[in-house]
Amino acid sequence: MAKTYHHNSPVELESGEILPEVVIAYDTFGTLSEAKDNVIWVCHALTANSDVKDWWPNTVEEGRFLDPNKYFIVCANFLGSHYGTTSPLSINPTTGEKWYYDFPRITVRDMVTCHRLLAKHLGIDRVKLLIGSSIGGFQCMEWAVTEPDFMENLALIATTTNTEPWAAAFNESQRMAIRADGTWGQLRDDAGLDGMAVARSIALISYRGAPAYNATQQDRDNPTDAAFERRAHTYQQHQGEKLRRRFNAFSYYRMTEAVDSHNIGRGRGSVADALRQIKARTLVVAISSDILFPVEAHIQMRQYISDVEYHLIESSFGHDGFLVEHEKLNNIITNFMNY
Amino acid sequence: MAKTYHHNSPVELESGEILPEVVIAYDTFGTLSEAKDNVIWVCHALTANSDVKDWWPNTVEEGRFLDPNKYFIVCANFLGSHYGTTSPLSINPTTGEKWYYDFPRITVRDMVTCHRLLAKHLGIDRVKLLIGSSIGGFQCMEWAVTEPDFMENLALIATTTNTEPWAAAFNESQRMAIRADGTWGQLRDDAGLDGMAVARSIALISYRGAPAYNATQQDRDNPTDAAFERRAHTYQQHQGEKLRRRFNAFSYYRMTEAVDSHNIGRGRGSVADALRQIKARTLVVAISSDILFPVEAHIQMRQYISDVEYHLIESSFGHDGFLVEHEKLNNIITNFMNY
Repeated sequence: MAKTYHHNSPVELESGEILPEVVIAYDTFGTLSEAKDNVIWVCHALTANSDVKDWWPNTVEEGRFLDPNKYFIVCANFLGSHYGTTSPLSINPTTGEKWYYDFPRITVRDMVTCHRLLAKHLGIDRVKLLIGSSIGGFQCMEWAVTEPDFMENLALIATTTNTEPWAAAFNESQRMAIRADGTWGQLRDDAGLDGMAVARSIALISYRGAPAYNATQQDRDNPTDAAFERRAHTYQQHQGEKLRRRFNAFSYYRMTEAVDSHNIGRGRGSVADALRQIKARTLVVAISSDILFPVEAHIQMRQYISDVEYHLIESSFGHDGFLVEHEKLNNIITNFMNY
Repeated sequence: MAKTYHHNSPVELESGEILPEVVIAYDTFGTLSEAKDNVIWVCHALTANSDVKDWWPNTVEEGRFLDPNKYFIVCANFLGSHYGTTSPLSINPTTGEKWYYDFPRITVRDMVTCHRLLAKHLGIDRVKLLIGSSIGGFQCMEWAVTEPDFMENLALIATTTNTEPWAAAFNESQRMAIRADGTWGQLRDDAGLDGMAVARSIALISYRGAPAYNATQQDRDNPTDAAFERRAHTYQQHQGEKLRRRFNAFSYYRMTEAVDSHNIGRGRGSVADALRQIKARTLVVAISSDILFPVEAHIQMRQYISDVEYHLIESSFGHDGFLVEHEKLNNIITNFMNY
């Protein structure tokens, strides 16, 4: 069960809108040293939560890069996600009703605003390592650009400096699927769930590219019957159903908007200008078959970060490689931390 | 206005189901020579129709590869599409009501069965060239494998021997979007149209890959406002709306099933065994940035066709390149025909 921090003062969002209060759910693993110099802060990806052990297997273990005997690991559920932090399913204190459709649009910068409130609450003013993959990487990058002295080391994995049009097209199709669901518009927690299941199946296409699908979802060769039933069909349905059982369409909708808003250079001159603010020793890791945030995005980002180490993980799992390739990732990150 | 051929006898489908009758809409351009030796038969792609001039610009023109002064060009709307040919919106003669959800599932082989009925009706027993792109290529390939003496030349463009799992996943997500539409299930022509608009937006992601989106749908650099509005969003909506105005979800649903059923080797030993049946002089054309039916699919198919010429079109338009790159395509095909 995650801990919670109730921040009872207003929080201004990048859009100028105000949240009257925020609740932040977080988990910690290990023990904070007296010198407070052993903190690893993890920023989670899209539909994950603050329980790193739950969604990033084989990492929070002795001898791994999130060794709880060595480090004090903190992970906060980000703003908008419904795993304990303020989300569209929370009560709007102004109305006494759930936010639902009235929950403001949020950006990755707003997520980082909330992480900072928690860090302050926990008395953490500097971390040994800030690490995140995918939209977790977005949050880390934002934090490193805006508070360069907060982190000694920074790890950006399977991520990008700005959500490119093709990725934004994937996300818009997902939101279109939610909007096309006849229950979207109703004031109930399960509104839009059919659409969200479709959305998840669309997302999977981008998380695992053609090589991963074609290797793992191949049908048996040349069935003699007309092949209307394909393994890839049930896979898509299964992925949609899995998320339907644990998520809500309101959070999902706002979170994908936050993904599309990501541009580290917005209002800062350029991507290059923004990245040049980073002071941390930085690790950039790309996955060879990632079509969502491709290798080139990582090569571009590393050229603007002053103290950077770059690794390419050869994998056929696409963007999902950041979860699947924990062995390779562990080697890279432990080596990076043992410099 | 397309011509129509009413075939008033039952047609057995690959599934074993029977259509009591079929209507086939078709267009012709140019004049059939007395020797009947100047026929080019075009098989159209997913949401196109029999009017080749309408959907394949700059082709049915003097001096181009579909020169109507030289050739007699035939194109039939394929089975299941609603542009004049028997489709789910047609009347089921058995019930006197529209077929809608009861329209049988069809395969690419069933489409070719209907093309043959039309060819027989028109007195055409051999064509100079059979040509098609995408699912048009599926039909051409099926025809060439099952009636190898029907075509002197064969052109297969931006196509594949079998729909791979990743492509099938795209199609299943599209059908999930239609099923999630609250109006799907109603007995009316416009049922599922919201879902179909979503489906089209999903398909576009596969028709134009990252390079095309990132080149044409880029937002202006670093807007200072929170970037919730992206060009790629309105593009997705626009593409969905465009199809909504001219198509129906019933045909779209059945057509995508037909795409997923495509496997030239099904029931024929293997893909290689099937392709070895082809006798025609064959042209295979791939588009460098096609992620739906990638270059490798074309390289695989050409190795099993005995008399084959292969070309790669360098283009950033992805699968859509078969429509956009008409100039390059024209050069390749006219050279191929002037051997």
